[in-house]
Amino acid sequence: MQKITLLIHCKDQKGIIAAVTSFISKVEGNITYLDQHVDVEQNVFFMRLEGEFSLKTDFVAVKTIFEQTLAKDFSMSWNFYISGVKPRMALFVSKYNHCLYDILGRFSAEELNVEIPLIISNHNDLKSIADQFNIPFYHIPITKETKDEGEKRQLELLKKFEINFIVLARYMQIITPKMISLYENKIINIHHSFLPAFPGAKPYHSAFKRGVKIIGATSHYVTDALDKGPIIEQDIVRVSHVNSVADFIMKGKDLERTVLARAIKLHAERKVMVYENKTVVFY
Amino acid sequence: MQKITLLIHCKDQKGIIAAVTSFISKVEGNITYLDQHVDVEQNVFFMRLEGEFSLKTDFVAVKTIFEQTLAKDFSMSWNFYISGVKPRMALFVSKYNHCLYDILGRFSAEELNVEIPLIISNHNDLKSIADQFNIPFYHIPITKETKDEGEKRQLELLKKFEINFIVLARYMQIITPKMISLYENKIINIHHSFLPAFPGAKPYHSAFKRGVKIIGATSHYVTDALDKGPIIEQDIVRVSHVNSVADFIMKGKDLERTVLARAIKLHAERKVMVYENKTVVFY
Amino acid sequence: MQKITLLIHCKDQKGIIAAVTSFISKVEGNITYLDQHVDVEQNVFFMRLEGEFSLKTDFVAVKTIFEQTLAKDFSMSWNFYISGVKPRMALFVSKYNHCLYDILGRFSAEELNVEIPLIISNHNDLKSIADQFNIPFYHIPITKETKDEGEKRQLELLKKFEINFIVLARYMQIITPKMISLYENKIINIHHSFLPAFPGAKPYHSAFKRGVKIIGATSHYVTDALDKGPIIEQDIVRVSHVNSVADFIMKGKDLERTVLARAIKLHAERKVMVYENKTVVFY
Amino acid sequence: MQKITLLIHCKDQKGIIAAVTSFISKVEGNITYLDQHVDVEQNVFFMRLEGEFSLKTDFVAVKTIFEQTLAKDFSMSWNFYISGVKPRMALFVSKYNHCLYDILGRFSAEELNVEIPLIISNHNDLKSIADQFNIPFYHIPITKETKDEGEKRQLELLKKFEINFIVLARYMQIITPKMISLYENKIINIHHSFLPAFPGAKPYHSAFKRGVKIIGATSHYVTDALDKGPIIEQDIVRVSHVNSVADFIMKGKDLERTVLARAIKLHAERKVMVYENKTVVFY
Repeated sequence: MQKITLLIHCKDQKGIIAAVTSFISKVEGNITYLDQHVDVEQNVFFMRLEGEFSLKTDFVAVKTIFEQTLAKDFSMSWNFYISGVKPRMALFVSKYNHCLYDILGRFSAEELNVEIPLIISNHNDLKSIADQFNIPFYHIPITKETKDEGEKRQLELLKKFEINFIVLARYMQIITPKMISLYENKIINIHHSFLPAFPGAKPYHSAFKRGVKIIGATSHYVTDALDKGPIIEQDIVRVSHVNSVADFIMKGKDLERTVLARAIKLHAERKVMVYENKTVVFY
Repeated sequence: MQKITLLIHCKDQKGIIAAVTSFISKVEGNITYLDQHVDVEQNVFFMRLEGEFSLKTDFVAVKTIFEQTLAKDFSMSWNFYISGVKPRMALFVSKYNHCLYDILGRFSAEELNVEIPLIISNHNDLKSIADQFNIPFYHIPITKETKDEGEKRQLELLKKFEINFIVLARYMQIITPKMISLYENKIINIHHSFLPAFPGAKPYHSAFKRGVKIIGATSHYVTDALDKGPIIEQDIVRVSHVNSVADFIMKGKDLERTVLARAIKLHAERKVMVYENKTVVFY
Repeated sequence: MQKITLLIHCKDQKGIIAAVTSFISKVEGNITYLDQHVDVEQNVFFMRLEGEFSLKTDFVAVKTIFEQTLAKDFSMSWNFYISGVKPRMALFVSKYNHCLYDILGRFSAEELNVEIPLIISNHNDLKSIADQFNIPFYHIPITKETKDEGEKRQLELLKKFEINFIVLARYMQIITPKMISLYENKIINIHHSFLPAFPGAKPYHSAFKRGVKIIGATSHYVTDALDKGPIIEQDIVRVSHVNSVADFIMKGKDLERTVLARAIKLHAERKVMVYENKTVVFY
Repeated sequence: MQKITLLIHCKDQKGIIAAVTSFISKVEGNITYLDQHVDVEQNVFFMRLEGEFSLKTDFVAVKTIFEQTLAKDFSMSWNFYISGVKPRMALFVSKYNHCLYDILGRFSAEELNVEIPLIISNHNDLKSIADQFNIPFYHIPITKETKDEGEKRQLELLKKFEINFIVLARYMQIITPKMISLYENKIINIHHSFLPAFPGAKPYHSAFKRGVKIIGATSHYVTDALDKGPIIEQDIVRVSHVNSVADFIMKGKDLERTVLARAIKLHAERKVMVYENKTVVFY
């Protein structure tokens, strides 16, 4: 058996589901999962489908037929993934180690369906963790003067290692529009607040000052507008007057870890689709 | 426009989704929502579909065709509901008033898509609430001696008022196998614990004694096995050593209210399917 | 037995707890609950204490001694409440009925330790609910022209009915600085977002547009700065791409109900203290 | 400054708080935190107090006075900890690696205030993780025949390394009454269900079979009665019909990690007191 995942979005039209499911039947596939969503306001149709095919299936042919018939008829945007091919993920870090430990721990425990060919950092502090987990670590310092040069080096590495998506595990540098455009909806950030509350720097301090009773963390795709990209996952934890800013930070670390790990998992399993700065997440 | 909801379950087979969605296209319907689930272990297929049809559509004809073609070909169990026809719900209560106030408040605020033709109680205590909300109240005392007679009277009322489903809003009597068989998967109970922990009487006292850090409530369909029916919805709330049994009860009331209201809503909107003592809940 | 609640805050100093607890011992009281908090940043001490006294205790004398000794020595702000005297709460409403039904349901179920002498509204829509629960309802229309006159009438009623605190159960008018200063930290609002995200009008629409995965509700004391007062309680619920704005609103209603009810309970049981636009909430 | 933590429990009596806080004042300490609890049913008083003392304070003398006066007068059970002395924790593991990775990651990120002198396992599978984090690993196989011998070896190591408490990070062997009595309320287990539901083996399979909508994890002290010890912490996560047993297990891993880490933190920071098979947890 071979398994595939098919993601589709297009203008909503009558008969799409029937057409797609009939197509899968015709090419001898068995649908094991199907979920779809219609954004009524925008009139857009989204579908995620998993199917099983015999080992002999010629997917190049299947994709060509799909391209020339359905995809054309319905003007679809679509992606076709063969399961078993793990996406290749680059980790960007700075000095905070909690998300890095968590991701590498889960990776080692085989909970994340990814390859991690490299870690890139603007500081050398976390190199020992990369060594501990045996992942190549590239220290590329970023200063005002070296920003362009540094980014050039980063892009070369991403290309060389055939990276599919990037995870900013508390990476403390702004990503440039250039890199964002090259990895559109493929750079995942973790922000340590319940966005849109407290964007930017020091959200735990702001939350403490405001006297909130709940703090949160948000994982989102990076866009040119700071902390305004499509939200993939959020979660929260209760706080009270008993908690200091230091407590907020400690409780927040737990949230950041969990929320980022969930976002990575969802992205790696091709369960996220982006449209109009929002995500459709098929659980 | 007329809206319909179609619920289907049957043995999982190739091509079901294609067949159903093609059928809807053929009878000039537009699918506005479709969710499906395959229970891989049991090899059962479940589908919930919402569609829009023109006002001229002859649903009797549509249903007949469906019956004679797809339903037959795939050996389907199926239900077809025309939206706008509200299910008729009977409330059974005893002496606790919090769920009753909550349900009648939501009903009055038009949050529940039901009719409530009557309230039945084995005590007279809550009659004034029924009066306050202008719902007919039937006091049918139940003692060992009058149990059979009482149930007979209950069944007559349920029949007379054309009741579709029953909600036990903290009704403190065991429902007999006879009534259960007449309203299979149509009697909703709220149990004040996180089932399967603490079935039976006095769950808050047991939870307190055990020193749990979280208490819960569970809404389920009533079956012959006490507190063992298919679970529709559960929720929890944190407790601590600070809380007394009385606090558990008070916090629990909030849970009971919310969980029961959600279960009623899900059932009334035909989002729940039962199979092998479990529920498929299409949110 | 008579029960009392004592709330204290003052500059943090050595020996306060010893002094207060010794005092209670000396006047023959038994401490049944004590919680305290030190705001290290602001160097402020907060205490909440519950105690039992014999029926013969002369509380006027006790309070006088406390005033002239400890309260003076430590420059305390303090409040002394005799349990059993229920605070008197005014409800302000407009057209939304879900919070009103919920509060009156809980009040009737004796879950809220308050008196509700009156409901004030700028519309007549909810009068029938007030009638249903037998609470006096005052319709005071507010237009640009009648704003001053309306407020004058409101203040007269609040005074006449000896109101201790006001609950805005989705009251759709701005409260004036005058009323706020007369009822400082005594006007409780429910805002239908997870503040500080989405203050102001139409938060559910904004949340939908931003594509958040969690929505919230916030209960806070009203201050002159809109939606910026001290937060008493917050809670959240998950949403997904499946949910429309209408779903957000429906799920939000459940949150608003629950969060407001909890805030009312906490305030009525004198568990909330305000300092520097934040609350200390002793659960 | 030196910081201390004082834990007390005894029969509830008038004047305890006054006596203790006066004592701290008298020995020149400053109370920075105090929380207390009265179990009204059992008539037991619990207190947790943190204080600051000058560097010159002679704690041996302070403890002696406390012992001979207050502790005697009130028949107290008490513990006095000087902050900065980290408790020494032994990890017991078998084959599951997710909790081990998580604990060692947090330990390395300096989130846990403990020493970890050794890891003991009945299998050799996780040795490489211990090596990776540079913690001594002792492989002590346990079979029916070697059980006594193995335990003897375990106890020798615990003694040799001056272990204060033991964490069973998914250790798949029953702890004997002998070891339990030597480390009473000092062995922390993580059970992968929402106890008391689903004790014993394969709780995720049982939860799946029962069709629950929420699964949980529970951390508790080990007692002779399997999965019946005092509960320290619990948490839950939602599941639905979409989730397979494998999904339950994966979601559960996240819960197990988090709940166990919280329990370790609470225990290491001396925030947990045990009484009558329940815990008082001072957050």
